[in-house]
Amino acid sequence: MKGAVLYGPRDVRYVERDDPKIIHPTDAIISLSATCVCGSDLWPYRGVDSSSQPTPMGHEYCGIVEEVGNAVRNVRRGQFVVGSFFASDNTCEICNAGYQSRCVHNEYVGAGGAQAPFLRVPLADGTLVPTPEVPSADLIPGLLATSDVLGTGWFGADAAAAGPGKTVAVIGDGAVGLCAILAAKQLGAERIIAMSRHEARQKLAREFGATDIVSERGDEGVAKIKELTAGLGAHSVIEAVGTQESMMQSIRCARPGGHVGFVGVAHGVQLPGQELFYAEVHLHGGPAPVRRFLPKLIDLVLSQKINPSKVFDLTLPLAQVAEGYRAMDERRTIKTLLRP
Amino acid sequence: MKGAVLYGPRDVRYVERDDPKIIHPTDAIISLSATCVCGSDLWPYRGVDSSSQPTPMGHEYCGIVEEVGNAVRNVRRGQFVVGSFFASDNTCEICNAGYQSRCVHNEYVGAGGAQAPFLRVPLADGTLVPTPEVPSADLIPGLLATSDVLGTGWFGADAAAAGPGKTVAVIGDGAVGLCAILAAKQLGAERIIAMSRHEARQKLAREFGATDIVSERGDEGVAKIKELTAGLGAHSVIEAVGTQESMMQSIRCARPGGHVGFVGVAHGVQLPGQELFYAEVHLHGGPAPVRRFLPKLIDLVLSQKINPSKVFDLTLPLAQVAEGYRAMDERRTIKTLLRP
Repeated sequence: MKGAVLYGPRDVRYVERDDPKIIHPTDAIISLSATCVCGSDLWPYRGVDSSSQPTPMGHEYCGIVEEVGNAVRNVRRGQFVVGSFFASDNTCEICNAGYQSRCVHNEYVGAGGAQAPFLRVPLADGTLVPTPEVPSADLIPGLLATSDVLGTGWFGADAAAAGPGKTVAVIGDGAVGLCAILAAKQLGAERIIAMSRHEARQKLAREFGATDIVSERGDEGVAKIKELTAGLGAHSVIEAVGTQESMMQSIRCARPGGHVGFVGVAHGVQLPGQELFYAEVHLHGGPAPVRRFLPKLIDLVLSQKINPSKVFDLTLPLAQVAEGYRAMDERRTIKTLLRP
Repeated sequence: MKGAVLYGPRDVRYVERDDPKIIHPTDAIISLSATCVCGSDLWPYRGVDSSSQPTPMGHEYCGIVEEVGNAVRNVRRGQFVVGSFFASDNTCEICNAGYQSRCVHNEYVGAGGAQAPFLRVPLADGTLVPTPEVPSADLIPGLLATSDVLGTGWFGADAAAAGPGKTVAVIGDGAVGLCAILAAKQLGAERIIAMSRHEARQKLAREFGATDIVSERGDEGVAKIKELTAGLGAHSVIEAVGTQESMMQSIRCARPGGHVGFVGVAHGVQLPGQELFYAEVHLHGGPAPVRRFLPKLIDLVLSQKINPSKVFDLTLPLAQVAEGYRAMDERRTIKTLLRP
């Protein structure tokens, strides 16, 4: 098969790769119905995370089970499934506590490179969630979104304790930030402030549930959030960028006793302990335990109560994956869906 | 009156100071039944926090109300009261959410210097909690402990989500760490691991509810906690020191999805964002909102269900305050109680 491989900064190629095979009896091989480019793929694409080896890319997936190992019991050939970027046994103490991304047996599914027609998924029983039947084509993009971008935004909203009566600020207007707005809305937040200076993204933010838009950043952005919250700060802040600036902005936008949920993969971030001490916020984040939320999110998409597929504003054949990356890198597009 | 004043590193003097007076109609003046030296007083005492001015010291207090301002309604002359180091109106949105230490009108009571016979307490109605009657002398040290050391340890345990079924690790064997053990026990923790290499403190840790003692520190201490928790880490970690080492040890001792409650005043701490991201712990701490817990803690002391006064292993007349500091600085004593 052919798949996406990163050779160096801004050099993604659609090249011949080995077909994935069952390695362990707990594996499954799926045929991808759709895949996409993640905001976090841009870190290695831009050379911020560097690798000396050509690296198969992609970690968001949904599709049809082609083959399962001998030990797989919960999924079978022909089923449509969605999974997360971290494989998990979903039975260990950490999984049971809802942290499947940190399962004691976790394995990065993306190592196999999901921007391809086929993918090996380890720990299939714990990782994959089958839908009741094979969904219609129009629902595939929304289901794909649950695999990471929505699951991650949802975790951000959950970690930020978004809920009824809460004012929620969202830092970052990428696809994850936008999905976090959708999540905060579903979780019942009273007011949702999107921090964005990009018109198309502001529009989608409003569609997803944002009640206010703040275009200021940094100290001015913080001042604006304070102004909108009687000087107190937001109850909940969702950080979906991963830089020093966005982390500090998030902490400073939250009121004392408030919650900051951070899901942007931290790059070059150092949090000053004394400021954190006196900020007195709750801080929680990390790689989203998407598996915790998947059954609920899949239901919401299948019942068409939400439509996270709107974050995909560019659809390309997988063969044009390089353009998919370029469009996101240059912020011409929010998120690229790829059709194998 | 005479009171404790810090003139420079390791130079605390018992000197003449102005008697405190009602400044605002919401103030009260109390006559202290007892006061004490806090672990956090050692930061300026050791010159880590420096001040160019002679500084009145002390912020832990309980005693008899001597005088109240015109606007005070809830406390009256002759009552025995306990308060926290932060005055709070206890009516604002932040107070109502349980973060009285960050009240929109908060004021540091310690600015008045509680290591003295008399103290001005701002926002008396919101800050002071009267006992049903004037307590007997033997209960005074325990009540004094609720003012900060127990209230802070309790907040640490609360922030670390200590509770039934949980394994709790406590980093720091000072009076706050020891009180955090007592709190974790009261909150129903199943297993409490005290990290201490000091025999007298280990003994008190066990009295307060510790089930295990770990004397290793740093990476070895982390390895030991992992060993005691099937490789997963503790559910709850309470940090009661405030250094880079203790913060990192705390984060590393917690399992993914676990909770770190940090109450040691952070000094020179920089938290690496990427490690924090992948640690996936909940992090919460800051100046303890002791007022939230005071009514409950006072009840527990008055009903003799707990005896936090055991942290006071040295009692001196206030005139010997300098020796009180020295004994704590040299770790000859856990905590010094001072009798005005």
